[in-house]
Amino acid sequence: MEDKLKELRERWLEISDLSMASRLLSWDRATYMPAGGAEARGRQMALLQRLSHERQTSPEKGRLLEELAPFEESLPYDSDEASLIRVSRREFEKVVKVPPDFVAEAAAHSTASYQAWVKARPENDFAAVQPYLEKSLELSRRYADFFPGYDHMVDPLIDRADQGMKAHTIQALFAELREQLVPLLKKIREQPEADGSCLHRLYPEEKQLAFAREVIERYGFDFERGRQDKTAHPFMTMFSLNDVRITNRVDERDLGQALFSTLHEAGHALYQLGVNKDYEGTPLAWGTSSGVHESQSRLWENLVGRSRPFWEYYYPRLRQVFPDQLADVSLDTFYEAINKVTPSLIRVEADEVTYNLHVMIRFDLELAMLEDRLAIKDLPEAWHARYEQDLGLRAPDDRDGVLQDVHWFGFSSIGGAFQGYSLGNIMSALFFEQALKQRPEIAAQMAEGRFDALHEWLKENIYQHGRKYTPDELVERISGGPLSIEPYMRYLRTKYGELYDL
Amino acid sequence: MEDKLKELRERWLEISDLSMASRLLSWDRATYMPAGGAEARGRQMALLQRLSHERQTSPEKGRLLEELAPFEESLPYDSDEASLIRVSRREFEKVVKVPPDFVAEAAAHSTASYQAWVKARPENDFAAVQPYLEKSLELSRRYADFFPGYDHMVDPLIDRADQGMKAHTIQALFAELREQLVPLLKKIREQPEADGSCLHRLYPEEKQLAFAREVIERYGFDFERGRQDKTAHPFMTMFSLNDVRITNRVDERDLGQALFSTLHEAGHALYQLGVNKDYEGTPLAWGTSSGVHESQSRLWENLVGRSRPFWEYYYPRLRQVFPDQLADVSLDTFYEAINKVTPSLIRVEADEVTYNLHVMIRFDLELAMLEDRLAIKDLPEAWHARYEQDLGLRAPDDRDGVLQDVHWFGFSSIGGAFQGYSLGNIMSALFFEQALKQRPEIAAQMAEGRFDALHEWLKENIYQHGRKYTPDELVERISGGPLSIEPYMRYLRTKYGELYDL
Repeated sequence: MEDKLKELRERWLEISDLSMASRLLSWDRATYMPAGGAEARGRQMALLQRLSHERQTSPEKGRLLEELAPFEESLPYDSDEASLIRVSRREFEKVVKVPPDFVAEAAAHSTASYQAWVKARPENDFAAVQPYLEKSLELSRRYADFFPGYDHMVDPLIDRADQGMKAHTIQALFAELREQLVPLLKKIREQPEADGSCLHRLYPEEKQLAFAREVIERYGFDFERGRQDKTAHPFMTMFSLNDVRITNRVDERDLGQALFSTLHEAGHALYQLGVNKDYEGTPLAWGTSSGVHESQSRLWENLVGRSRPFWEYYYPRLRQVFPDQLADVSLDTFYEAINKVTPSLIRVEADEVTYNLHVMIRFDLELAMLEDRLAIKDLPEAWHARYEQDLGLRAPDDRDGVLQDVHWFGFSSIGGAFQGYSLGNIMSALFFEQALKQRPEIAAQMAEGRFDALHEWLKENIYQHGRKYTPDELVERISGGPLSIEPYMRYLRTKYGELYDL
Repeated sequence: MEDKLKELRERWLEISDLSMASRLLSWDRATYMPAGGAEARGRQMALLQRLSHERQTSPEKGRLLEELAPFEESLPYDSDEASLIRVSRREFEKVVKVPPDFVAEAAAHSTASYQAWVKARPENDFAAVQPYLEKSLELSRRYADFFPGYDHMVDPLIDRADQGMKAHTIQALFAELREQLVPLLKKIREQPEADGSCLHRLYPEEKQLAFAREVIERYGFDFERGRQDKTAHPFMTMFSLNDVRITNRVDERDLGQALFSTLHEAGHALYQLGVNKDYEGTPLAWGTSSGVHESQSRLWENLVGRSRPFWEYYYPRLRQVFPDQLADVSLDTFYEAINKVTPSLIRVEADEVTYNLHVMIRFDLELAMLEDRLAIKDLPEAWHARYEQDLGLRAPDDRDGVLQDVHWFGFSSIGGAFQGYSLGNIMSALFFEQALKQRPEIAAQMAEGRFDALHEWLKENIYQHGRKYTPDELVERISGGPLSIEPYMRYLRTKYGELYDL
């Protein structure tokens, strides 16, 4: 059986290396590729993905997994070996249901759709992407049909990113969250608005980047095993467990932009950098799910990076970097500015309290489209209507409306891409609460610019396991119960209660 | 037959895309990869190369080429179709002779050897790389043995880079060149030495890069189809005919470093950017040979970029960029400085007159090693001895001696890597002479900072053809005769005769 396990690992290593190579091609496309390279690059990525897919679905691999089944049963559930076989089988069973032609069609569509969006967004031209969205919707339905027996058509799409999560669970969680968020937001809005103007002075790019770099190095991001580059849209990617990269963007008139997107992506990166090195080249090398991954980006961005203890240490340092810009700004003013709650139009710039409302709008619209209650042509107006209803705002155009996020345009599917953001928020507080319970020194350390107790706890309880557990299993292991919004609401109520004197 | 030709193109496209992807991984390794990424990167590149090699040597491809043979004969020799079939067959016949195990062994050795060299060079530690070199020599001999019937063991190694060239031809050319170079150098050395000190003032990096960029844009380098990054060792690479990249390095105390390496690599890039777009994804998409490629880098670096007309236009511009540094430097002084002839230790920094002596030393040492007249352990001393004999200089250590070039350490072979540099010099003058004959306006244009007549001539006569012709065929087509050193010596004698009042 050891031989068969070795063979399984070897097969995965090749699959993984092909995917990693494709990821590098994608990273380069986003960071450095000249425009002329686009056509060949799309083709090259499609080839690598096809080769990887062929190997993922090979009948030999299926047989190997069958042969390994009794071995798996003889091992403890959470042993590395049993987990590798279990997760491999889960992946295999999922991937063989999708025909290669469909994969190729979706990949080609994805590229074309992305390119159309890149052009259409600055031109505010929804009509130009409408046929691509219609095709994406069709592809999403066809994808779901490969998994008959689902409760909701979106479930197979969700399962790709958030293993085991279902529409009805998420809808229930979101309904509960909404019920508690809306009154909280209302109370905050009755208080005087925080003054965020100090963030919009002129902050030279180089200094912003140097400061953000300093912070993430203290977080534990290792520049010997990663790097940071600039892109239009920040992301984290990985080419091996020892080469994990993040990107960000800088706005010299918005101090929060580069800093918090760096902390966010660094959170994703710390997760990947903390995975057990033995998992290299296997499906265990990734994070548990989209939601758990997002819990880490949000934890390092918000629960740490926008916390009072953090800035007790870092604000004096930031003032050294920007002495003129921050001369007249107190720690209190700065702390209020970076936590200013105000309904806004752009998801990625939203504060912690309103952020989830943006996600829910997208999730609900996805369901409406999949259920045929909403036609693509009516999507822009449905978007505006929901923003007016939920956030009291209407975008002046589609650029900052339905065209703002890449997801529906770049992933060739509608459904399954957004729920992870809110699941991540919910989990971030749940995990952080447990960490604080078990390692009470974390808060004091943060006020000294130290993060090792927190980082260690996260590595031990989350990062090292990679994708060994399902999200539900991980939550259960850590909190002893199912996913609950309570820790998150406690966190928001405490923090914003203090900030807004509620 | 059209179907079979289409199939051939499709097979090549996949081979090419795998190679291009591997090249991107290599480019990233040289430019941006964090140290931690090295292990996985080596494995990923080896995988892509193996997949490409498997497809290059597939029996189906062999059969396809056989079936296409009658079709090829029915077509004009220099038609695109006949050329694709001909070059494909040539490649196929070469590549199938080398067993996959050998390819894998050589690739793995190449990576290990390169890493050893990267570490050994700064530490001046020849002993650390000696076993790698011994293995490389063994691999070189084994490679040659796959091609029995050669005149000289190095011929199959040379043929990889300079199709059809043989040791005895090159030795004859080099002997002739040496015979004429040595007295020229002697005469120059009898004259007062030029003053190169103006190049070694402080030239800020950003301004150097901006100036070099300005020049290569005027050359015709299209930043929509290429880019430039910094690396320890400058190179040109390509991921498609519309994504051709160069790298360089900057020394703030050496104005020539970044500028001329940029012009050099831009020459390689202009070649690739000028290849007929229909050749994308086929073996015709590359330049003719190492020598012909080098003729273009040297032409744009030296025959253009170190010429008097060029600087009549650009020197006033350079002075605008560096007004303080160049205030007291006349055009004459500057022109003499960039063309200063002086024996030196480092090939890539050598002037035009002594450069080929560096190449000949390497070429001769390669033959000596292959013929077993020189043991690897004696190589460092043999190197020093030859430098003393030919250039009157002895490096203080091996770092600037035998460890200076990557070739023997990074390519897992000894032999075939250096001759192209001198062949390129020889060809550069031969081609340039023809260009000037056929387009007499070239010189006057250069003095106006315009290069379109030259660039057009080169595209028409060389670039567009890609690898359609052998080097000999190309030289014959352009000059009506075989490769001759006479144009090159005429160029050197005229230029340096004027510079040194000979």
